[in-house]
Amino acid sequence: MKNDDDASSLEERVTRLEQEIQSLRASAPRSDKATLVVFSDDMDKALAALVISTAAASLDMDTSLFFTFWGLNILRERRVYEGKDILHRLLECFTPAGAKDLSLSQMNMLGAGATMLKKMMEEKQVLSVEEFLTLAKENDVKLYACSMSMEMMGIEQRELTEGIQVAGVATYLQEARHSGITLFI
Amino acid sequence: MKNDDDASSLEERVTRLEQEIQSLRASAPRSDKATLVVFSDDMDKALAALVISTAAASLDMDTSLFFTFWGLNILRERRVYEGKDILHRLLECFTPAGAKDLSLSQMNMLGAGATMLKKMMEEKQVLSVEEFLTLAKENDVKLYACSMSMEMMGIEQRELTEGIQVAGVATYLQEARHSGITLFI
Amino acid sequence: MKNDDDASSLEERVTRLEQEIQSLRASAPRSDKATLVVFSDDMDKALAALVISTAAASLDMDTSLFFTFWGLNILRERRVYEGKDILHRLLECFTPAGAKDLSLSQMNMLGAGATMLKKMMEEKQVLSVEEFLTLAKENDVKLYACSMSMEMMGIEQRELTEGIQVAGVATYLQEARHSGITLFI
Repeated sequence: MKNDDDASSLEERVTRLEQEIQSLRASAPRSDKATLVVFSDDMDKALAALVISTAAASLDMDTSLFFTFWGLNILRERRVYEGKDILHRLLECFTPAGAKDLSLSQMNMLGAGATMLKKMMEEKQVLSVEEFLTLAKENDVKLYACSMSMEMMGIEQRELTEGIQVAGVATYLQEARHSGITLFI
Repeated sequence: MKNDDDASSLEERVTRLEQEIQSLRASAPRSDKATLVVFSDDMDKALAALVISTAAASLDMDTSLFFTFWGLNILRERRVYEGKDILHRLLECFTPAGAKDLSLSQMNMLGAGATMLKKMMEEKQVLSVEEFLTLAKENDVKLYACSMSMEMMGIEQRELTEGIQVAGVATYLQEARHSGITLFI
Repeated sequence: MKNDDDASSLEERVTRLEQEIQSLRASAPRSDKATLVVFSDDMDKALAALVISTAAASLDMDTSLFFTFWGLNILRERRVYEGKDILHRLLECFTPAGAKDLSLSQMNMLGAGATMLKKMMEEKQVLSVEEFLTLAKENDVKLYACSMSMEMMGIEQRELTEGIQVAGVATYLQEARHSGITLFI
């Protein structure tokens, strides 16, 4: 009788443990997952985001880049003016039109700094931002463009390079909350 | 006899598992918790921090914003000069006095960029920084102001908007270490 | 017979739980670990990174700082021109040569802002960036310099302050993926 009681109470404890481990597995972020917000369109910061994310993907980490605000400019293919009001045309004009057109976060010196950095990158055979974007796509880094920023800044999907998913902040949060690595760049 | 031994050894293993799962639960960050440092007082970055944190709170995540350094300016209600030395009066004069007074991180063009962005936000019915701060308070986002920065920059609690807790870096670390999402903005 | 079956099935479940908890322990980030990327060489941001990391270390958290890109300038001891080509000499000339030589991320006003901040820090007995670096080393904060950035920017280990490990992005990812706190500053 005692043995039966013990066994059944032990079984209850094991069942509880199984439930707890399942809930813990659901609630703990994963060390093999990384989600980066790319807010800036500075060339040096874009490079940092792409180096980290492609390296993470090459270690088989489930990796996402969420481009928002100025960061959207990194994904642009070309300037589009048609169908935009005066404010959005101005914005179009004054922001970089894609990965080839970025400036530095400091020491930009009217573009001389960016040119210098590109030279140094070539010398050391570091990939350009454009080449890194292609590598990221090849390595299954998920590339999201923030829908709210796109709407606010008047950027449409046709203006962006291929392979980008348009998504909202809820999608970002779903990726990020389960990620061991979360950065805002 | 053998059965009893087995049962007791099994019980020991279950006890050990229960302890381990408790320690793991205590040590693993939680996917339903987010802690953001707001270091910058740029309008675009403040907006990003507030969009992410209010969205997280609306998903029932336990969310904290820790305003430090320039970020404190977002929380200010008005300029206060009395009782400050010359250095802190200068600082008072040259920094934004609250959520309505912020500039852009780039393309600010002496304020024209910030005005443009506000126009685009209104058009798309995006909340202003001020409205987002109110929403954050309503949604139980915890708002902390960094005590060390306040002391260094000579900012007192009476200068800040209501509903802000003054706290040190230890408080930040206690929130952040258990958070699935940690950002520095 | 039934009892034996039950016991063995219970034992299998306990064995499975033990395996699962081991895999979960390996995959969940730890709340007592923090890894910060220091990308910027702005004095105010360097200060933020050093305040957070030394406070984390004083709470017995396993803490790493990974200095990359402009952040490397914080670790420099002196300017070195010999053996560098014209591009890297220019870079050497236009970037801060160490912790004493940093500017502010805003309101720098040709150095006046940085001087003002240093004065305010002295008044409030806040450590300087240099003193914080020493404190970080004393408190076992791991200090890494990004090898890829060093190569690209032509910075050699002999130019850096003592106690710095040169490491690649893979080392960063190994530290960061297991860290409850991950920031990009």
